[in-house]
Amino acid sequence: MEQNVPYKIYLDESELPKAWYNLRADMKNKPAPLLNPGTLQPMTFDELTPVFCEDLVRQELDDTTRFFEIPEEIRQFYKMYRPSPLTRAYFLEKALGTPAKIYYKFEGNNTSGSHKLNSAVAQAYYAKKQGLRGVTTETGAGQWGTALSMACSYFGLDCQVYMVKVSYEQKPFRREVMRTYGASVTPSPSEGTAVGRKILQEHPGTSGSLGCAISEAVEAATSAPGYRYVLGSVLNQVLLHQSIIGLEAKAALDKYGVQPDIIIGCAGGGSNLGGLISPFMGEKIQGKADYRFIAVEPASCPSFTRGKYAYDFCDTGMVCPLSKMYTLGSGFIPSANHAGGLRYHGMSSVLSQLYHDGLMEARSVEQTKVFEAAQLFARVEGTLPAPESSHAIRAAIDEALRCKEAGEEKTILFGLTGTGYFDMTAYQKFNDGQMSDYIPTDEELAASLAKLPKVEA
Amino acid sequence: MEQNVPYKIYLDESELPKAWYNLRADMKNKPAPLLNPGTLQPMTFDELTPVFCEDLVRQELDDTTRFFEIPEEIRQFYKMYRPSPLTRAYFLEKALGTPAKIYYKFEGNNTSGSHKLNSAVAQAYYAKKQGLRGVTTETGAGQWGTALSMACSYFGLDCQVYMVKVSYEQKPFRREVMRTYGASVTPSPSEGTAVGRKILQEHPGTSGSLGCAISEAVEAATSAPGYRYVLGSVLNQVLLHQSIIGLEAKAALDKYGVQPDIIIGCAGGGSNLGGLISPFMGEKIQGKADYRFIAVEPASCPSFTRGKYAYDFCDTGMVCPLSKMYTLGSGFIPSANHAGGLRYHGMSSVLSQLYHDGLMEARSVEQTKVFEAAQLFARVEGTLPAPESSHAIRAAIDEALRCKEAGEEKTILFGLTGTGYFDMTAYQKFNDGQMSDYIPTDEELAASLAKLPKVEA
Repeated sequence: MEQNVPYKIYLDESELPKAWYNLRADMKNKPAPLLNPGTLQPMTFDELTPVFCEDLVRQELDDTTRFFEIPEEIRQFYKMYRPSPLTRAYFLEKALGTPAKIYYKFEGNNTSGSHKLNSAVAQAYYAKKQGLRGVTTETGAGQWGTALSMACSYFGLDCQVYMVKVSYEQKPFRREVMRTYGASVTPSPSEGTAVGRKILQEHPGTSGSLGCAISEAVEAATSAPGYRYVLGSVLNQVLLHQSIIGLEAKAALDKYGVQPDIIIGCAGGGSNLGGLISPFMGEKIQGKADYRFIAVEPASCPSFTRGKYAYDFCDTGMVCPLSKMYTLGSGFIPSANHAGGLRYHGMSSVLSQLYHDGLMEARSVEQTKVFEAAQLFARVEGTLPAPESSHAIRAAIDEALRCKEAGEEKTILFGLTGTGYFDMTAYQKFNDGQMSDYIPTDEELAASLAKLPKVEA
Repeated sequence: MEQNVPYKIYLDESELPKAWYNLRADMKNKPAPLLNPGTLQPMTFDELTPVFCEDLVRQELDDTTRFFEIPEEIRQFYKMYRPSPLTRAYFLEKALGTPAKIYYKFEGNNTSGSHKLNSAVAQAYYAKKQGLRGVTTETGAGQWGTALSMACSYFGLDCQVYMVKVSYEQKPFRREVMRTYGASVTPSPSEGTAVGRKILQEHPGTSGSLGCAISEAVEAATSAPGYRYVLGSVLNQVLLHQSIIGLEAKAALDKYGVQPDIIIGCAGGGSNLGGLISPFMGEKIQGKADYRFIAVEPASCPSFTRGKYAYDFCDTGMVCPLSKMYTLGSGFIPSANHAGGLRYHGMSSVLSQLYHDGLMEARSVEQTKVFEAAQLFARVEGTLPAPESSHAIRAAIDEALRCKEAGEEKTILFGLTGTGYFDMTAYQKFNDGQMSDYIPTDEELAASLAKLPKVEA
């Protein structure tokens, strides 16, 4: 069968999915609801709509509707870069000498450089539909901010991005891409918000964090008329939009009669992993097929593998709702690793529930090993991967090498979320042999987890 | 008909061309031969093989064989990123409100970020086939050096890149991509070659030039056993390899019954333009179809529009053969514009002959106008273009706006040679409103052209 599989499978435009798949509808144990941090009661539609767009809140709260039709305007936009290619990694298989068959779904074939655009365009569309003037958000590594600025430019929305200060300074080129798309980019923490001023007062000279930028963006959205806040990961709505990754991957594999044994994705907040596995996980839950799912996270920010499944704040400023998730504590600051997209202290509540229920595995990897995999992949497959994506590459290679030892012809699918063109400082460190690994001590984690809010689950 | 054209046309892997097309075979007036600068006689096979690989010299000198079969190993490599997409620019058409139909062939969907990989892999393959240890080359903007390092990594060849010093310093990330692929990158001029030392002595503190880096790379290749020099543009062999762009574009258009009226490409040394137009120009020469061809060059380096058609040196050090071409003089140093790939003083001899014979038009554009076009394109088509490619975008937009005025439904095809992810310094200048234009004065050009070598054509 496989000799008929081309290097790249491009679905036709007509095969672009017409609906997103809401995995929650098929989950036996639903993910826990967001809680109001004041009342500790589930957040209601009315409580969420001052912060988020109405249609997005509907999607956020709906755990029974199986499919959401993708509006025509969004499908038009998707045609710029979708269906995205599914690649058979023939070159990598040969380099490894493995009998395993490796596939990857590549989401970096757009200027934002990652899968983030899939949800950005949806969120911008609903904001426009609601008649808003603009949206605010935060960005760390910059993929999400870039994606959102592209989407806002398309729909004619104002886009205000709070960029973690250290990234703002280290990644001026990311910032310029956003500016090219008309976004305004503010280093966070900033003097422009109350929460920013407070953080600056308490921590003068801080280089910022994602949790802190979230707090600022939320304040900016709720204090200006006609603005709402949007978020690129963690939320249920984001996983819903990102299901297009898995739907396309499955359609492409089905076309060639291929069924994966193992599905691998990197996990920061869960947007890519959740999207990639959704339709496959749905089949597993319904007993229609069996798959192994592996979430790969950095050893420096190991929320699945060393965190606690508990209610926690989504942001540092503690202005956001509480979410039940695997968390390292909202005060946890990961060491300076080179995968900005995987430095979040928590995890999607959908994925957290699936992991808690034993439907998914997780492992953590150290960044030098990740960059070794990235370099090999770049050299043989010709695409320079993002550090985040390279976590999945590392695990895929490890699984393929196990197949080699065992002589097993397993089929592996992984998510190649993006390209690393804006991460060359990290590659330079690796090329110069100056990259090191950072693993939090048990004491550090215990101290951070001791500060979790007291909530009866 | 056109409503059936999708946003992106992806040919199947099986539709990948099996042979390169040698336009020279169909040219009535053949391009003038390279001359030995000492004897002023046409360069022979034996004179060229100490510098270039044997099979490549055969291709260079052959102006009668119409098709060269693409070796299977190269076709395998091409499958990493080819056939490349042909996009119908529906979004751009809508933004312009033009009745014109615009298509672009996108060559930036690979990590080198441009079409340069098409020839790099061919040149590396023939070097490997000849049993060489490695190759040397120069790079300015960095696309060619990146492409060559990818190709050399694939075939296990050593790759030595002389990078124009100003680019080496301003574009450290380009350099790191090359290093990730295992290439060694030396800022030029360097102390490692005789010509480099000479240039450094005469011009202390110089930031280098492409012509100077060529001289160094040629010296490095000819003074080390098992090495040859390779070049990413200008040469006949490069246009031959790049014909794959035009062949695929034509196959994709033919599939949908579309015939372009106007074909536009940016022109530095001519590698992309020559490749894009080849099969169409062949038809025009043979009277099978008519097309308008437009070469677009920067106003700061206007070899077609203000240069002289004459024999000139290909490099500053005057160690290379003489080529008959439109040239500004081998000593011409263009002002610091932001399209490093279009800063060469000369032009492909094939394209020069075609232009001389009136088969092609040329125009020059100023860079602020180019970046205006680039910004619009990025915003509506979702791809952040390279400054070089944006010259073609500028001309395509201008033609589409003319169609709008005249109410004409012309079909325009242009080459989108690459992405601008490593050109954000230029975009920043534009975003900050600090970009200016540089146009050489008549006196400057006359002074440079006065130094052309005296050769009877």
